[in-house]
Amino acid sequence: MTLANGRPYLAIPGPSTMPDRVLNAMHRAAPNIYAGALPEMVESLWPDLRRLAGTKAHVAIYIANGHGAWEAANANLFSRGDRALVIATGTFGIGWKESAAARGVQAELLDFGKSAPADPARIEAALRADTGHGIKTVLVTHVDTASSVKNDIPAIRRAIDAAGHPALLAVDCIASMGCDAFFMDDWGVDVAVAASQKGLMVPPGLGLLWFSDRAMERCRGSDLRTPYWNWTSRATAAEFWQYWAGTAPTHHLFGLRESLNMIAEEGLEAVWARHAALARTVWAAFDAWGAGHPEIALNVADPAHRGHSVTAARLGPAPNATRLRDWLEQRAGVTLGIGLGMALPSEPAYHGFLRVAHMGHVNAHMTLGVLAAMEAGMIALDIPHGSGALTAAARVVAGAAGA
Amino acid sequence: MTLANGRPYLAIPGPSTMPDRVLNAMHRAAPNIYAGALPEMVESLWPDLRRLAGTKAHVAIYIANGHGAWEAANANLFSRGDRALVIATGTFGIGWKESAAARGVQAELLDFGKSAPADPARIEAALRADTGHGIKTVLVTHVDTASSVKNDIPAIRRAIDAAGHPALLAVDCIASMGCDAFFMDDWGVDVAVAASQKGLMVPPGLGLLWFSDRAMERCRGSDLRTPYWNWTSRATAAEFWQYWAGTAPTHHLFGLRESLNMIAEEGLEAVWARHAALARTVWAAFDAWGAGHPEIALNVADPAHRGHSVTAARLGPAPNATRLRDWLEQRAGVTLGIGLGMALPSEPAYHGFLRVAHMGHVNAHMTLGVLAAMEAGMIALDIPHGSGALTAAARVVAGAAGA
Amino acid sequence: MTLANGRPYLAIPGPSTMPDRVLNAMHRAAPNIYAGALPEMVESLWPDLRRLAGTKAHVAIYIANGHGAWEAANANLFSRGDRALVIATGTFGIGWKESAAARGVQAELLDFGKSAPADPARIEAALRADTGHGIKTVLVTHVDTASSVKNDIPAIRRAIDAAGHPALLAVDCIASMGCDAFFMDDWGVDVAVAASQKGLMVPPGLGLLWFSDRAMERCRGSDLRTPYWNWTSRATAAEFWQYWAGTAPTHHLFGLRESLNMIAEEGLEAVWARHAALARTVWAAFDAWGAGHPEIALNVADPAHRGHSVTAARLGPAPNATRLRDWLEQRAGVTLGIGLGMALPSEPAYHGFLRVAHMGHVNAHMTLGVLAAMEAGMIALDIPHGSGALTAAARVVAGAAGA
Amino acid sequence: MTLANGRPYLAIPGPSTMPDRVLNAMHRAAPNIYAGALPEMVESLWPDLRRLAGTKAHVAIYIANGHGAWEAANANLFSRGDRALVIATGTFGIGWKESAAARGVQAELLDFGKSAPADPARIEAALRADTGHGIKTVLVTHVDTASSVKNDIPAIRRAIDAAGHPALLAVDCIASMGCDAFFMDDWGVDVAVAASQKGLMVPPGLGLLWFSDRAMERCRGSDLRTPYWNWTSRATAAEFWQYWAGTAPTHHLFGLRESLNMIAEEGLEAVWARHAALARTVWAAFDAWGAGHPEIALNVADPAHRGHSVTAARLGPAPNATRLRDWLEQRAGVTLGIGLGMALPSEPAYHGFLRVAHMGHVNAHMTLGVLAAMEAGMIALDIPHGSGALTAAARVVAGAAGA
Repeated sequence: MTLANGRPYLAIPGPSTMPDRVLNAMHRAAPNIYAGALPEMVESLWPDLRRLAGTKAHVAIYIANGHGAWEAANANLFSRGDRALVIATGTFGIGWKESAAARGVQAELLDFGKSAPADPARIEAALRADTGHGIKTVLVTHVDTASSVKNDIPAIRRAIDAAGHPALLAVDCIASMGCDAFFMDDWGVDVAVAASQKGLMVPPGLGLLWFSDRAMERCRGSDLRTPYWNWTSRATAAEFWQYWAGTAPTHHLFGLRESLNMIAEEGLEAVWARHAALARTVWAAFDAWGAGHPEIALNVADPAHRGHSVTAARLGPAPNATRLRDWLEQRAGVTLGIGLGMALPSEPAYHGFLRVAHMGHVNAHMTLGVLAAMEAGMIALDIPHGSGALTAAARVVAGAAGA
Repeated sequence: MTLANGRPYLAIPGPSTMPDRVLNAMHRAAPNIYAGALPEMVESLWPDLRRLAGTKAHVAIYIANGHGAWEAANANLFSRGDRALVIATGTFGIGWKESAAARGVQAELLDFGKSAPADPARIEAALRADTGHGIKTVLVTHVDTASSVKNDIPAIRRAIDAAGHPALLAVDCIASMGCDAFFMDDWGVDVAVAASQKGLMVPPGLGLLWFSDRAMERCRGSDLRTPYWNWTSRATAAEFWQYWAGTAPTHHLFGLRESLNMIAEEGLEAVWARHAALARTVWAAFDAWGAGHPEIALNVADPAHRGHSVTAARLGPAPNATRLRDWLEQRAGVTLGIGLGMALPSEPAYHGFLRVAHMGHVNAHMTLGVLAAMEAGMIALDIPHGSGALTAAARVVAGAAGA
Repeated sequence: MTLANGRPYLAIPGPSTMPDRVLNAMHRAAPNIYAGALPEMVESLWPDLRRLAGTKAHVAIYIANGHGAWEAANANLFSRGDRALVIATGTFGIGWKESAAARGVQAELLDFGKSAPADPARIEAALRADTGHGIKTVLVTHVDTASSVKNDIPAIRRAIDAAGHPALLAVDCIASMGCDAFFMDDWGVDVAVAASQKGLMVPPGLGLLWFSDRAMERCRGSDLRTPYWNWTSRATAAEFWQYWAGTAPTHHLFGLRESLNMIAEEGLEAVWARHAALARTVWAAFDAWGAGHPEIALNVADPAHRGHSVTAARLGPAPNATRLRDWLEQRAGVTLGIGLGMALPSEPAYHGFLRVAHMGHVNAHMTLGVLAAMEAGMIALDIPHGSGALTAAARVVAGAAGA
Repeated sequence: MTLANGRPYLAIPGPSTMPDRVLNAMHRAAPNIYAGALPEMVESLWPDLRRLAGTKAHVAIYIANGHGAWEAANANLFSRGDRALVIATGTFGIGWKESAAARGVQAELLDFGKSAPADPARIEAALRADTGHGIKTVLVTHVDTASSVKNDIPAIRRAIDAAGHPALLAVDCIASMGCDAFFMDDWGVDVAVAASQKGLMVPPGLGLLWFSDRAMERCRGSDLRTPYWNWTSRATAAEFWQYWAGTAPTHHLFGLRESLNMIAEEGLEAVWARHAALARTVWAAFDAWGAGHPEIALNVADPAHRGHSVTAARLGPAPNATRLRDWLEQRAGVTLGIGLGMALPSEPAYHGFLRVAHMGHVNAHMTLGVLAAMEAGMIALDIPHGSGALTAAARVVAGAAGA
């Protein structure tokens, strides 16, 4: 029989759970796009988006998904033939590199595998080797949605500076913005990229770019720029439509306004702390399940290098991860993420890996429920696992939430 | 800090979780109440409501809450001065008795306390003692929302018959309809009472009455009847407005239609089985918490006498239950029910009891999440408890859901 | 072909057009009914509801429709055998009388037909004749939803006083509250009755009662009172559930909160003025259509005696009104009200009459669109009519809205 | 005073009125993007979108607005330095030209002003002059949102063919798709461009491209193509994410599904016929207002060359159009479109022009209400105008809708 027939819980790393407040804000008649409530509201978005990214920089909202936001960044950062150094710590780092390469950028890949963060020393070395300063920008993923590896952005900035290299630093924060701490200005980031459907809790459809004066200035002549992706015309819009290079994404904007309200009400630091605590909750369960069962293990060994919004893990051998995901969806009402791009050489692609998302509108109840349902599934499917995971998870929650 | 900022989960015994489908069905422009989509749709409700209660009897929908539905039943069943035998196994049995008594019904109370079901032998004895057959109707609660005691309705009918007494049998199914198995016709029930906001997953606002031909016939002359509560005019409506004795509850009716669709899609037996499994999941956790900790205990000792939609439990000593409820709401995003009407003589009212609802739109994820959050709360608040509860709960889910 | 496929417009006299804001406020997860957002919000309803009715009196919200609200009023006002004087100026005045009579109230009917208001002199005479002051309450409809006749409530109060009679004055404001000016205290009204689905722009499901100290005091012993209808326990609720004699109508209450916000933002006087102007807009069109066509005529000759929320009119001969209504719904996207209870002796019931509602969430665009669509329908159906109606209507709007 | 406080009516040419069904379909929990309801539903979109455009061609959905859809078309159609012939009959024709030119396309403009359609003879001449067949594609707007001019697409195709020129024909149908008849295959169109927020009744956020095999083949090597805009990878997606070059626009897709359902239920031909009738309704009113008042006039003299979704008109002298628009929004609840790009040399920009939209979810009531409100505004503001407009409009509705 199935015990799934209640509210389904989606724990994939994006789109995340849409808050009722956000959906309600989007359930509205179409607004006028020339005057009135919409243009007035939009002016309130800019300061809040800057606060979110810890910056005084420019910000542009694109009607696009995350891949579109990458392309927007690339279009503004590069001319054909420009060189980029791309740091990959998972599938999406490679994706951004391919997006740039497809436009004719000479994108050099520094690949750190799928379970460890970038080593700043290798980045510094690569930049030192670029004595002619041909590399224009370093592209790096903050948290890779697929591997859940988190990179140390300040350390990468220090590596660039230590190499005495003038390259810009562009960071893909799609999986981390609003989940993991991020301080664009303090960390010396020139360009940050995000999308609506993860920590921002808004349906897919908006890409976000923050960019420094320095980036805007240096990239003034980028010949990959197109009217739609051009950030300068968006940042210096004289008329409302120019913010969007055309018609505004009316309903999404009201959704975003509500999402930013929710973040402001909780407090951005509190949001980050909540994500950190829930991530540790998930990790504690996996540590217990994996005790004596090395085929169950978190993908990233060092907690310091794990993102706080999504956890990739091995739940092997294949196809156990897939069997468990299927069981959870059909019997318990939980949908986990597939082990995107994660596979042992000896195994059918990804069926020994899975991902648990804990991004955005997520609380102790939702996360603990996922873990307990996972344990039920492992029992039902006779997947061997260590004991005490749920109590260990509950203890993390108890410790974080306090008395 | 709080880990509550995600989707709040309401686990009180009504209103229950409203499915998105139901809320969406209610989010609509007002319909014409004379012709068109509404009157056409309403005709489809009657057979589905009959199926829900296992009957071929009449059914009426009132704009009212559960107390209103009691009053509707009383108004049709009784004339001033009539006698009723009321079976109480919790707060709501007493409530129905008071509702009748306030109308001038001579309502004799058979009170079986708050932790055990009615004893059919005592009912039979009471009816045998009524040699003049003055008792017109026996009123009994199927599952008491406050105590979570479930009565054995077929046994009570057998007791009435064994006494050779012609009394009607009226059953309050407010907390059980759509959750616990119920067969109105097979069980010899004359009147069943329900409301929208529990197993039916529709916001409060509808009371439901099913009543047999025998009940309609016998109560033809009831002088408590009022135009609004009169079930005959509703059951024999010649015009659409007469179903509702006035304007139809337009939006609630569309919500109810969708709720009945959901029940039909899952299958009523499957819905009952899901509730049974989730109830056992909750019980297993309490059994483990209570091992060696007698101050933690389910309110009803025998599983056969526990309702499947709500579980009342002691989590003492007071005010531990209230402390835990507060913690869950503020730190973990879960709202439990208060221990309504449950208190030890030595304790501040109800603060040593609580209720966990598992009624309606509820799945393994939601229920397991509640239990895991409760364990986190007990840890955080240093409430001593037995170990292994979450694994025990997960095992019940695994066993029920299968491989 | 049909030109109806856009947003359908419902111009029946209740339910009225539900504002998006109200529907959105009702599209929410079920709230806790013991603490938190709902009980806190509810406290804000009472002063706003008093302001709406122009009173410092008590107010109670029932889960019920308008017929239920009548019954609530009757149950509190009367004991079996009490006498009432009921003023009828349309179908609903007679309905209230029948509701009372069905409870055993000796309800004497003063029927003023369906096209004219009550004559205070006849009321005074009837009361003077009651030298024993056996009449306990005078029941009168402010605006009859069926006939659209508006009674002069202050004049009726003066008639009661002139007769030196102590009778209470109870007024059915179901079709007028929030549409026509109403000053309960200044006008000497003891009881006012309303419902959610007309001027209050909330789906059917709430009945509202305002009642003076004098009414509460005098009716202390009413033996028709039931626990559900009892206004005293609602007005003096010690616990939240007692406001509703059971479970609160959670979603409707949030809808009502939003509706009252909208009225407050516009200003109650402005709401009344808007209704007055739109009523005159409709009347102007009918006056023009009827010029030279006496079979087209407003039901109430004197504008001073017409309600501002609904307009009943003859559009004869039968079945022209019904033909036009059908055409409007199928071809133009407008649903008008049937000519409820309005018929010439020589004609098939009501098919020569119709009603245009202009209550609640209604503006110039909506109302003018109805009138223009009606003219289109009359042209299409070859229903002869006077010319210039639409320009006349536009002129009223222009005059009211100003430059 | 204001008579605007009801449901506001937005009659700007996009975003259009969002049907409740579409908004409800978008009010949903986030779906899984790897399996289940979303991917299954999406497969049903393709045949329906093809039917909409009258084609067997490829179709791609972009997360983008209309400007983004232009850019998508340009990116696939052209390499840097390629030549295009762009036909302008209003602001948006020029906009598409600028979009192409900004990418380095040599876009030659044939500008036919803002009140008349393109002359096929001039197009033929221009192509004949291009003896080297350097022009790769002819870009033309079907209906210009700003001017409301409609071009004769089959005639333009004939002109291309008559010139013996191999140029592709790409048509901007943003303002016409789902409103004016369009037969992509029969008319010999190679590329069609649309967006969600007009005839498709879905919030802004989706751009749509249909493209023939011939276009896909010929443009195989376009070097403006980027990963995001690339239509080939979208049309030949092996995995679900490739349809969208990343995350799917989950909520918009469900909205689009519902919109296509609505169109299918009414029938595409009936949808077109409804738009045609409502356009003629608007025109009839303007003709009457303009009789003897040449400063009031439709922008396009010949009805055959007017789009059916929007009507641009002069309501001069400036600033009368703006005064009327302001009055309508503030006093009557109607928002009209500004006279985008329309101005006499002697006048402040656009304030003597306005646009009335009648696109998508629009019926006789909505359109007649706009016209009647406009007449009220002209009266209130003392804007001289001819008489009989509303009756003329009603007559068109009557004639179209029939008896």
